[in-house]
Amino acid sequence: MSFRGVHHLGFAVNDLEEAVSTYGRLFGATLEHRDRLEQQGVEAAAVLVGDGRIELLAPTGDDTPVGRFLARRGPGMHHVAYEVDDVGATLDRLERSGAELIDHAPRKGLYGLEVAFVHPDSVHGVLTEVVRPG
Amino acid sequence: MSFRGVHHLGFAVNDLEEAVSTYGRLFGATLEHRDRLEQQGVEAAAVLVGDGRIELLAPTGDDTPVGRFLARRGPGMHHVAYEVDDVGATLDRLERSGAELIDHAPRKGLYGLEVAFVHPDSVHGVLTEVVRPG
Repeated sequence: MSFRGVHHLGFAVNDLEEAVSTYGRLFGATLEHRDRLEQQGVEAAAVLVGDGRIELLAPTGDDTPVGRFLARRGPGMHHVAYEVDDVGATLDRLERSGAELIDHAPRKGLYGLEVAFVHPDSVHGVLTEVVRPG
Repeated sequence: MSFRGVHHLGFAVNDLEEAVSTYGRLFGATLEHRDRLEQQGVEAAAVLVGDGRIELLAPTGDDTPVGRFLARRGPGMHHVAYEVDDVGATLDRLERSGAELIDHAPRKGLYGLEVAFVHPDSVHGVLTEVVRPG
């Protein structure tokens, strides 16, 4: 199988600086990356808790996917991303297995990752991403 | 620091058998453990997606923590668990760092784990567990 494990967890937050500081103070997390994807309306910080990667996500405005998520549910767990060898081949296989895809082809994510999302309705309510490190 | 990484992700589901089957079909997940904690009102299956561990959690009744979570939010991401060397020492350090603890002492979790939970209000809405493998 091409699923290697969990690449990162995405958590939606209201205040990115405060969240980075919380993860450092409580869990000794270190900052790995910072990035901003204007067309996705998101500003992100990847922090490492031990060897686990947490992607803290803040919206650049209210009318963005993460902004609407925060308005509806408040801050909290947003998605899980699994690392795969080949995002395109994985999407083909997921579709044949009956998964509802959000992205039908790989696209560019944060930090140069190649990514695609699977609809949470296919995965018992969990927004699921597949990722190939750049 | 004693935080080694992500031990598992806990996802709340309505139907445990169906969820185990979905994770196998879509992500090639294999079953690692099954357990039932009557006093926590939870039935669980740990599955491995590559080397990532997902703990699928179904309630044993409506008036249980996971049952109430499902009624309020529907199925989805429930908690993240970090692996630590010493749960008791970690709780002391978390409390000194200003975290609000749910468990002030380690307790017995699923599959013989030693566990404790930190309140989501301390962690930007994320229910956070610390775990020492048994």
